Amino acid sequence: MDNIGVDFLSEVVGTALLLLLGTGVVANVALIRNKGFNGGFLMVNFGWGIGVFAGVVVAYNSGAHLNPAVTLGLVANGAKTFGSAAAHTLVPVNFATVVLYILAQLIGAMIGAVLTWLAYKQHFDEEPDPANKLGVFSTGPAIRSYGWNLVTEIIGTFVLVFVVIAFGHQPGTAAGLAALGALPVALLVIGIGASLGGPTGYAINPARDLGPRIVHAILPIKGKGSSDWAYSWVPVVGPIIGGLLAGWLALLLLPILK
Amino acid sequence: MDNIGVDFLSEVVGTALLLLLGTGVVANVALIRNKGFNGGFLMVNFGWGIGVFAGVVVAYNSGAHLNPAVTLGLVANGAKTFGSAAAHTLVPVNFATVVLYILAQLIGAMIGAVLTWLAYKQHFDEEPDPANKLGVFSTGPAIRSYGWNLVTEIIGTFVLVFVVIAFGHQPGTAAGLAALGALPVALLVIGIGASLGGPTGYAINPARDLGPRIVHAILPIKGKGSSDWAYSWVPVVGPIIGGLLAGWLALLLLPILK
Amino acid sequence: MDNIGVDFLSEVVGTALLLLLGTGVVANVALIRNKGFNGGFLMVNFGWGIGVFAGVVVAYNSGAHLNPAVTLGLVANGAKTFGSAAAHTLVPVNFATVVLYILAQLIGAMIGAVLTWLAYKQHFDEEPDPANKLGVFSTGPAIRSYGWNLVTEIIGTFVLVFVVIAFGHQPGTAAGLAALGALPVALLVIGIGASLGGPTGYAINPARDLGPRIVHAILPIKGKGSSDWAYSWVPVVGPIIGGLLAGWLALLLLPILK
Amino acid sequence: MDNIGVDFLSEVVGTALLLLLGTGVVANVALIRNKGFNGGFLMVNFGWGIGVFAGVVVAYNSGAHLNPAVTLGLVANGAKTFGSAAAHTLVPVNFATVVLYILAQLIGAMIGAVLTWLAYKQHFDEEPDPANKLGVFSTGPAIRSYGWNLVTEIIGTFVLVFVVIAFGHQPGTAAGLAALGALPVALLVIGIGASLGGPTGYAINPARDLGPRIVHAILPIKGKGSSDWAYSWVPVVGPIIGGLLAGWLALLLLPILK
Repeated sequence: MDNIGVDFLSEVVGTALLLLLGTGVVANVALIRNKGFNGGFLMVNFGWGIGVFAGVVVAYNSGAHLNPAVTLGLVANGAKTFGSAAAHTLVPVNFATVVLYILAQLIGAMIGAVLTWLAYKQHFDEEPDPANKLGVFSTGPAIRSYGWNLVTEIIGTFVLVFVVIAFGHQPGTAAGLAALGALPVALLVIGIGASLGGPTGYAINPARDLGPRIVHAILPIKGKGSSDWAYSWVPVVGPIIGGLLAGWLALLLLPILK
Repeated sequence: MDNIGVDFLSEVVGTALLLLLGTGVVANVALIRNKGFNGGFLMVNFGWGIGVFAGVVVAYNSGAHLNPAVTLGLVANGAKTFGSAAAHTLVPVNFATVVLYILAQLIGAMIGAVLTWLAYKQHFDEEPDPANKLGVFSTGPAIRSYGWNLVTEIIGTFVLVFVVIAFGHQPGTAAGLAALGALPVALLVIGIGASLGGPTGYAINPARDLGPRIVHAILPIKGKGSSDWAYSWVPVVGPIIGGLLAGWLALLLLPILK
Repeated sequence: MDNIGVDFLSEVVGTALLLLLGTGVVANVALIRNKGFNGGFLMVNFGWGIGVFAGVVVAYNSGAHLNPAVTLGLVANGAKTFGSAAAHTLVPVNFATVVLYILAQLIGAMIGAVLTWLAYKQHFDEEPDPANKLGVFSTGPAIRSYGWNLVTEIIGTFVLVFVVIAFGHQPGTAAGLAALGALPVALLVIGIGASLGGPTGYAINPARDLGPRIVHAILPIKGKGSSDWAYSWVPVVGPIIGGLLAGWLALLLLPILK
Repeated sequence: MDNIGVDFLSEVVGTALLLLLGTGVVANVALIRNKGFNGGFLMVNFGWGIGVFAGVVVAYNSGAHLNPAVTLGLVANGAKTFGSAAAHTLVPVNFATVVLYILAQLIGAMIGAVLTWLAYKQHFDEEPDPANKLGVFSTGPAIRSYGWNLVTEIIGTFVLVFVVIAFGHQPGTAAGLAALGALPVALLVIGIGASLGGPTGYAINPARDLGPRIVHAILPIKGKGSSDWAYSWVPVVGPIIGGLLAGWLALLLLPILK
């Protein structure tokens, strides 16, 4: 077994970058007096897409999952190893390594959210609406209805994980994941945001939503309101279901299709 | 003859992804209370473009037509086979295989439209204007005039099929189609949408328009209005004419140009 | 000498595609009742950028100049041949071949403008403002001042031709021009439009402006106004000066820089 | 030692292009009566991103730093040489070469700013608000607070330099920097702008801010106001700290991660 510690660090750093750029673009568009205030939904999509791009570039050697739904989707898809043989980061897929990957993603997401809070500190302080502050950290539904919100998150995450596995051309090995470079995943995330982000703000990643929500609850953000824990399970459970479905269905379809 | 069933499945899955992301972005921009509401026409172009990108990635082995106008354009261009020799999905071009490709595209388009309806279920329910609901599924003219609407669809589809065949560098083999990867087609579709989508909303694909229109007619969408069957032939006939013209003209021009 | 006729046809077809998508996006954004009406300047930049992308893809073998300023810039840069040896379209650079390239570009630009008029026929008919109709075909200054408008066009075209020559890595051979593919040029044109298009609408291409202006003067466009011939020399002379300067300066700088 | 003069010229030309397109897009969006007026923050991000793209393309052989924070970040990262062996522009990293690189970047930035002033001369003349004029040249804070503004610039520059070093795959050699082409850096800068540009307008480059501020102070711009020298140290010191931190941290993390 290669160095799982490098995989862990790689997922932490990559997910932190993803969350810094991702929550950053929401802060820019949503918080008062920013230069990008009201910059539009497409700009938000680009921020998250390029956040994924940057995260994948630096987390190349752990396979750049950056997302528990991707990790679990690869497990469902029959992956035997995570990481990269060339980089001596190949580790077997088992309960411990899956937990470590997800833990790293959660820690990375929290670091990224803290950095965004620091970068936008004054705008958090001046923003009058607590809902806008929470919205920088975590997603929330446009129309609250846990069942339908769950459906939207499942579909969005399914598209993400299914196409990401198709990028790999070699389902079952995480190494194939980064083979095509970071650009296709970035484009895909821009597209999922634009196309499926309307109802729930597209968490499509449990760590992306839960990590910053914990940060929101802990940080001394001036005038912050509720962290909306009642909704918090939707962007965790939905992406997990969507990721597992994508991994299983890709197992059925992609060996045939490819 | 290789496995036509894989080609069929490939076209179904690819076209479903295209339609899910494509009709999804329209739902986000057009239906009330969405986070991307009024997100702008360029965002719609990106949604459709990246829908094509994702669809081409997963439907690589059938040649990723995803569009009867592309299938018929390749026939007019003199294609002898569809699919990929490497993937054992090479099938001869004849009446049966053309019909199967088109049928798969229509089924895929219907699946994608149903998924968008599910992902945006509550927004369909709350949207007061029936025209906006139909607009998610199918195109409609800005200024109704069947003749001129047809001209616009012919020109738009001509550009799509002509340049797609030029991507292939080897007109006559569908395998060449995906050679350059999915990015160029995505860019092209963004551009056609931005540049030629004004008058009719750029169907440029009979399956993309007819499949979802059938779904609109069948689904129990709350407060839906007419499916506007009077217009439905324009985005079918126009793209077919445009695709055939592009195939024929590419046969004349591209062997010389390339 | 190889087949100059193929080069000629290649420039006609490529420039027609460029102008169809380029003037098309302006029509979409500027003419009344379009679905992309008021779609924003960035959308216009994307339309022209992807127009260049599509044009370069199909005009690969003539070197895809699509612009007299590029042709003249390559001459000033010391090009000995145009076209491609591999495609048997290599022709010597002399007065006759330069004139033929420019003529092809002008004809292609006119064809593209006619197609846009057809695709947007009803919107031209309903548009009340003659200035918006001319604006689809040709550029005009935001603040009329021939001297400063000329400066803007010179700078914009200089950037285009200088960087295009840098793409080639081999100044002096047009073949190098398309080597890196069509994407970089598309990005560059999006950027020039966004960054230098404010004062004059970035003609940066004499054929792009003069060809459609002739079409505007000839076509029976309902309620059209003046073709503004008084301004017409600016987007011809400016790009020619900018292109020549870029060719000469690249001759000085790029052999050193590269 | 190879030719440091070519490196110097390369950095001048590349940074001039970057600043021309970068300050140009701000002029287009911010100055009265431009065609791109109020074109949105995403358009500004694209202008700067493609400015980096064009600058990197022409400054390939000096390693295309175009930014003192990148130069200093590479020093902190342990770079032994700048430039390219293949191009005979390899120079040792020492006090003199670092100063020359930074000087070239500053001169290039000033040239680019002058060209933007010329391209937008009439719009500068007609613009009534002096703050908008300065805003084309240099950045300014949305909410003035030197400490927090510094934090924002440090974080933004850290992301830039850290990911740019990760692109290289070979920290310690500037040659690796341009290996992956100019597109990834362009995307990254679009993303940093969208995600971290809200509070300070993302200088993330001391030359980009100081050079044009000097030009603003010197040029006879009609109705110009203060050059805001009180703020001028923030976009110099912040990016330097961010670049050094990124270089040091990449030294720790990337040899492990890669």
